[in-house]
Amino acid sequence: MVINMSRLYEKTVPTPPDEYVRVDHESLRSFVADVLAAYGVPEEDSRIVADVLVTADLMGIESHGVQRLRRYTVGIQVGSVNPKAKPSVVRESASTVLVDGNSGLGQVVAYNAMEIAIKKAAEVGVSVVGVRNSHHFGIAGYYALQAIQRNMIGMVMTNSEALVAYTHTVGRNVGTNPIAVGFPAKKPPPILFDAATSVVPIGKIEVYAKEGKKIPLGWAISNEGKPLDDPKEVLAKKGAILPLGGFGEDFGGHKGAGLALVVDVLCGVLTGANYGKNVKHTTEKEPANVGHFMIAIDIDKITPINTFLDRIEDYKSYVKNLARISENIEVWIPGEKAWLTMETRKKIGIPLHKNILKELQEEGVKAGVKFNVKMLK
Amino acid sequence: MVINMSRLYEKTVPTPPDEYVRVDHESLRSFVADVLAAYGVPEEDSRIVADVLVTADLMGIESHGVQRLRRYTVGIQVGSVNPKAKPSVVRESASTVLVDGNSGLGQVVAYNAMEIAIKKAAEVGVSVVGVRNSHHFGIAGYYALQAIQRNMIGMVMTNSEALVAYTHTVGRNVGTNPIAVGFPAKKPPPILFDAATSVVPIGKIEVYAKEGKKIPLGWAISNEGKPLDDPKEVLAKKGAILPLGGFGEDFGGHKGAGLALVVDVLCGVLTGANYGKNVKHTTEKEPANVGHFMIAIDIDKITPINTFLDRIEDYKSYVKNLARISENIEVWIPGEKAWLTMETRKKIGIPLHKNILKELQEEGVKAGVKFNVKMLK
Repeated sequence: MVINMSRLYEKTVPTPPDEYVRVDHESLRSFVADVLAAYGVPEEDSRIVADVLVTADLMGIESHGVQRLRRYTVGIQVGSVNPKAKPSVVRESASTVLVDGNSGLGQVVAYNAMEIAIKKAAEVGVSVVGVRNSHHFGIAGYYALQAIQRNMIGMVMTNSEALVAYTHTVGRNVGTNPIAVGFPAKKPPPILFDAATSVVPIGKIEVYAKEGKKIPLGWAISNEGKPLDDPKEVLAKKGAILPLGGFGEDFGGHKGAGLALVVDVLCGVLTGANYGKNVKHTTEKEPANVGHFMIAIDIDKITPINTFLDRIEDYKSYVKNLARISENIEVWIPGEKAWLTMETRKKIGIPLHKNILKELQEEGVKAGVKFNVKMLK
Repeated sequence: MVINMSRLYEKTVPTPPDEYVRVDHESLRSFVADVLAAYGVPEEDSRIVADVLVTADLMGIESHGVQRLRRYTVGIQVGSVNPKAKPSVVRESASTVLVDGNSGLGQVVAYNAMEIAIKKAAEVGVSVVGVRNSHHFGIAGYYALQAIQRNMIGMVMTNSEALVAYTHTVGRNVGTNPIAVGFPAKKPPPILFDAATSVVPIGKIEVYAKEGKKIPLGWAISNEGKPLDDPKEVLAKKGAILPLGGFGEDFGGHKGAGLALVVDVLCGVLTGANYGKNVKHTTEKEPANVGHFMIAIDIDKITPINTFLDRIEDYKSYVKNLARISENIEVWIPGEKAWLTMETRKKIGIPLHKNILKELQEEGVKAGVKFNVKMLK
């Protein structure tokens, strides 16, 4: 089995289709950037944020896409996000940097932090950049892709507002704290692992609530410690998401919780950012003080890059050709679904739910920006 | 709630107690080292291997303890392990090193690799050491502890012989590929996350088999893709362990499988070690060519070490004081159980199952080493 990059595939299929419109990704990106610029975000920075959001939609990670635009414009309006902030370097060594995001947009902070990490890694081989005083940065994988594009390995973590119940506890006390790791490949797609350390991200629970479906037992627990199947209870803060591995220790829930804790220590404790319940949401009055942690590794310093790239293709082929549990099911490389979805949506457009479309149009009116996003059907 | 380091606690309690004897850890360590030395392992190296094995027993990770001694002596006898090998540096930059283990004992290779990583990190801030041509190295956490002892963050990964079925596949096709991350603390215990990326390690399935118990559905699948509850079927290679997150994608099984793949790429693809099914067992004729991947971070280069250590204590206290799901249950920091078990067993001895005791005595006879391990009761 080989990876056919020309077939049309979408990780998330718009359901029901008549509630969605398809829009052209380039004009969507321009519109989002223009809205942000109207709030005082410098043009270059507004383009970074817009690209992170639209890339999430292209990749089928709609929960982190343009539907989040309002979160950021509200964050700017309430004063927790400083639209004009430039990240600054607090401390530096030959291969490490501590960056202060100065409460700027998380995407701008993280993009610049990864650029610093890449520059350092090119000089000395590997680098670590820790970041404090940032905000929610969207999809972690975006910043790993920056490293991939330079033939480097990128590792990216962030902490987030508390949504998960640590093993043997109740309530929301650690973030979904995702980890992304990206490896370049000779042929697309690259390998791009990007996952929350919880069973599911909060966005998935929002989708179930919207569709009026119950969530599987094992995704969340109530604040009294009972299994929850009503997604609305979780969203009403009457419950918390479980860590990857689920409830208790029998199926490794302590491993998921431990990974969330490791991410929190690297992003929060190491950098001076908030951690645990102290991490704020973008739209609260106080700056969220989210922390990030990034590593860039210049592969060629360890193994000749072409040797590495050949081996990656060999590895991809190894995984794609493993014995499948059923003929009807496909075996996926991390990031492959998202990559195929991106290629597909560049051709046929991004599906926007009508409510999101309306919200974007309202955002345009509020910002005084003309809604010139091109509809494809 | 504070951490009481003086109470007696064991993560794994010997059951039934009359099948176990308690032995003194120091004399056990000397005996194991003497046995290895009898097979031509240089004295210093034999002490490293013995310390890794006995530390696993002290920490309550018996599956990786002295019961594995035979695995290594057999590996030397069949020729896959070179007892006298010294690891060599293949490629080096200011902050990266590629090490060839030259088919030496995994513990010796990994110990030396982490020493190199620590030295580099002290110079430039962060370092990566990739390792190829190594063998099974025991508990990953041991090498993270080396970094912790130098007030550094240590990250350690290894690939292993294939035991896990990658998501949507059947058969054993990726390793249990553990990840360890350690953070120093002002007061013991340090934070030491150390976990396989599978639901459970193979050692846990061995324990259930020995006790004649069924394993929970969700730990393993048969080679036909059916849930398995008979641990003996798994051990007879009629099945594979599931990744952390379990079967399919509903509870994040693809995340566990993705993490296992990331570890395999970092340890195998990046370094030139074997990966996937090609990783051999210690006792096969060919060298296993296991790969490792390590990162050391000199905390003080990013944040003043005392500030970091204070924040770690604050974080530990945050976690220990979270609202518990029941008054009868304790909330644990990663590595805390193992640390308390170690302190306890240093006092009351390591429980050795009578079969393991017999096996060790046999190993002594074969090696011509007197069994002078001190029994404590």
